[in-house]
Amino acid sequence: MEEKIIELKNYLLDAIENYKKGNFEEHPYDLAKELEKLRDLDETEYESICKKIPSELFAEILCEMPSYIQEEIVEVISDKKVANIASNMDSDDASEFIYNISQKDEEAAQTILSKLDEEDKQIIEKLNSYEENEAGSYMQSELFMATLNEQIGTALKRLKKLKNEDHLDNIFHVFLVDKKGKLIGSIGLEELILFDKEQGFNEIPQDKIKNYACNHKSDISEVVEMFTHYNLSSLAIVDEKEKLIGRITHDDIHDVIQEQDTKQIYSLAGVNDDAEHEESIYLIGKKRAVWLGINLITAILASVVIGLFDSTIQSLVALAVLMPIVASMGGNAGTQTLTVTVRQMALGEISYEDAKKTITKEVLISLANGFLFALVIGIIAFLWFKIPLLGLVIALSMIINLLSAGFFGAVIPILLEKFEIDPAIGSTVILTTVTDVVGFFSFLGLATIILL
Amino acid sequence: MEEKIIELKNYLLDAIENYKKGNFEEHPYDLAKELEKLRDLDETEYESICKKIPSELFAEILCEMPSYIQEEIVEVISDKKVANIASNMDSDDASEFIYNISQKDEEAAQTILSKLDEEDKQIIEKLNSYEENEAGSYMQSELFMATLNEQIGTALKRLKKLKNEDHLDNIFHVFLVDKKGKLIGSIGLEELILFDKEQGFNEIPQDKIKNYACNHKSDISEVVEMFTHYNLSSLAIVDEKEKLIGRITHDDIHDVIQEQDTKQIYSLAGVNDDAEHEESIYLIGKKRAVWLGINLITAILASVVIGLFDSTIQSLVALAVLMPIVASMGGNAGTQTLTVTVRQMALGEISYEDAKKTITKEVLISLANGFLFALVIGIIAFLWFKIPLLGLVIALSMIINLLSAGFFGAVIPILLEKFEIDPAIGSTVILTTVTDVVGFFSFLGLATIILL
Repeated sequence: MEEKIIELKNYLLDAIENYKKGNFEEHPYDLAKELEKLRDLDETEYESICKKIPSELFAEILCEMPSYIQEEIVEVISDKKVANIASNMDSDDASEFIYNISQKDEEAAQTILSKLDEEDKQIIEKLNSYEENEAGSYMQSELFMATLNEQIGTALKRLKKLKNEDHLDNIFHVFLVDKKGKLIGSIGLEELILFDKEQGFNEIPQDKIKNYACNHKSDISEVVEMFTHYNLSSLAIVDEKEKLIGRITHDDIHDVIQEQDTKQIYSLAGVNDDAEHEESIYLIGKKRAVWLGINLITAILASVVIGLFDSTIQSLVALAVLMPIVASMGGNAGTQTLTVTVRQMALGEISYEDAKKTITKEVLISLANGFLFALVIGIIAFLWFKIPLLGLVIALSMIINLLSAGFFGAVIPILLEKFEIDPAIGSTVILTTVTDVVGFFSFLGLATIILL
Repeated sequence: MEEKIIELKNYLLDAIENYKKGNFEEHPYDLAKELEKLRDLDETEYESICKKIPSELFAEILCEMPSYIQEEIVEVISDKKVANIASNMDSDDASEFIYNISQKDEEAAQTILSKLDEEDKQIIEKLNSYEENEAGSYMQSELFMATLNEQIGTALKRLKKLKNEDHLDNIFHVFLVDKKGKLIGSIGLEELILFDKEQGFNEIPQDKIKNYACNHKSDISEVVEMFTHYNLSSLAIVDEKEKLIGRITHDDIHDVIQEQDTKQIYSLAGVNDDAEHEESIYLIGKKRAVWLGINLITAILASVVIGLFDSTIQSLVALAVLMPIVASMGGNAGTQTLTVTVRQMALGEISYEDAKKTITKEVLISLANGFLFALVIGIIAFLWFKIPLLGLVIALSMIINLLSAGFFGAVIPILLEKFEIDPAIGSTVILTTVTDVVGFFSFLGLATIILL
């Protein structure tokens, strides 16, 4: 362990030295991961290294670190250095950084904001004023723009200056604006590079100018759709007056896609995405308990259904032995349908208009599997308990439950989506309630009618 | 319905006319979606429109369509036109297109390949010779390269020519190679554009040249990691001799991320990703039945456990009423743990080295929730059936089952990953078996000891 700490420490110190000498080869991501490892092993060494990292480099490293490390950095280094780090970040990263700090310590965030120059401060406050789901909260204000009457060479000189001052990177387009800053369109660098520097932007043919843009108040999912449908590298963000105010780049979209997918996977399993990123086991456990509590209620509901038939079970205990099978099969078949429906809706492969088609498909599949497994479990139950009618009861109940599993597995998420509720959240518990209740009720109910 | 068909038809015919006139504004993605809608509504009209779309345009549209439509296109238009379309696609899209056709009709795919010129044919065959998970199967061979001794202007002239011939788009870098085609590094266009066209590539400072590259046989997940960690726009793909043979661009990576996530979500729910994209309900249902069949076996196993205690149940039927609660809570708590563990492993947030930490965390959470819900259900069971010891039995069994749910929910995916089995596939069924068996056994077992 001791050895590992020394190794990490030396690696990081070397990287810092190289950075100061100007021959820096590591990617900040790799340094961030090593620094995280050091933090896990030895907090004191971690803090001493943090104090040694120059602000410009730390800005790049911190962007690659999880929010809980960003949050606590004010406890490790001075406010002045933190402000310095923030001013070295791109505006989108800086605003997220300040936001993360404010989540833990609002006062510290305000102190750091007050130490920034007025322009940086205003931009960060502007970006943090957006709602979490709005495109504006993902944009950066740093971009490369030009006016139609400008010479290409003049604009490129400006780009060079901004890049040398480290104010700008990840450039894919020049955004053309009019005198009032209204967006005209964007030209990819792969087109721009083919023109002479002496030419004006107005000499570039119309068909090289693209018109993709998104309003700053739009939902980020619209932005993601534009990126994935149109294979964009970056997208202009405009305000109500179509003034260009920022841009979003493709690497941000990767992160959004993965976050959305994580949220979906977690929601389907009854887990809260935000809570899972907390460091406190107590907070994680509390959120999970909420979901388990809801599940407990539905489980008790299923028990109440069983309780209706206690005398039936008393007279034939084989029913108690077999009854979880039907409910379990219904739960699984329903989860299959539900998951496919939720995911295909999220990917835009099916929509409310296709609802009938989707439901028909799912009902047919589950009905077919219902007949198949009715036959299998009917025979098994007969061979096990030597009661022919018991085989019939479980077979009929299997068909009923798998049919309703397929139907509700498709209908529940479609209805939730229709009412603008995230279909991944909550649909699992509604479905399980249905398959449990239908499973136990049909099996024990049919048993009461047919067997007794 | 009739109206909708006419509207779609006119929209598509207009777009085709505009394309032919050279003033084309729609994105191929949008045309593809409208064409898909027409296909759903009226196959005859769809086929007649398909025959009218020029090959160059159709190449772009088909790239945006799902594989099952690509597959059947040979039944709609002539082999010669299909070959023409394929030759107008980027090599990665063309190879996927031919691959999709071959999945349905190997002979048709061969006919089309034979109609392509020798160079296109060889490239497509080369790309299709890669395994599905290899980086090479995602790359395109079209790229912009230059040698160190070349003048920038000369290389740009070549780029212009290739772009005008529609052989090249989505350019983010120039790849520098030596005389033998060995990769030296890549320069972003945002750097290159700042240099004079009269300068040579050898005048560009070393720190502007990046060295990211990936071997063509590497797993695509390594490529995805490089893109997400290092925020790349495109990545050079090299062979064993480090010769540059292709590149992968960021928009392909979006698709891979979404596909990987879909696979993960589906696997956790016991659904096969590939099968769900089939059009045949029979094939989808068959794959789902396999999973349901496995679930049936585990459900029967749980029933066998219950059967061990049939005389216990006979003497106290309340046990039958309450017994699904413990199993259900264990299943849910275990699924929470399992899902978080699988997802965090996939995102690289936890690894085998963190196994102990993860397991400890999960056991603590589930133990805490175990005590909480033991108390709740203990009281409820007592109030319901007025048997104090029954409350004790269900409370103890809840603690045991939630503890084992947390432990196995974390351990199962970590162990599967260790043995290089995809932890998303199969872990759910193993977990449910554990929580069912432990749930029923502990509850009925404790009841037999304590109550009888």
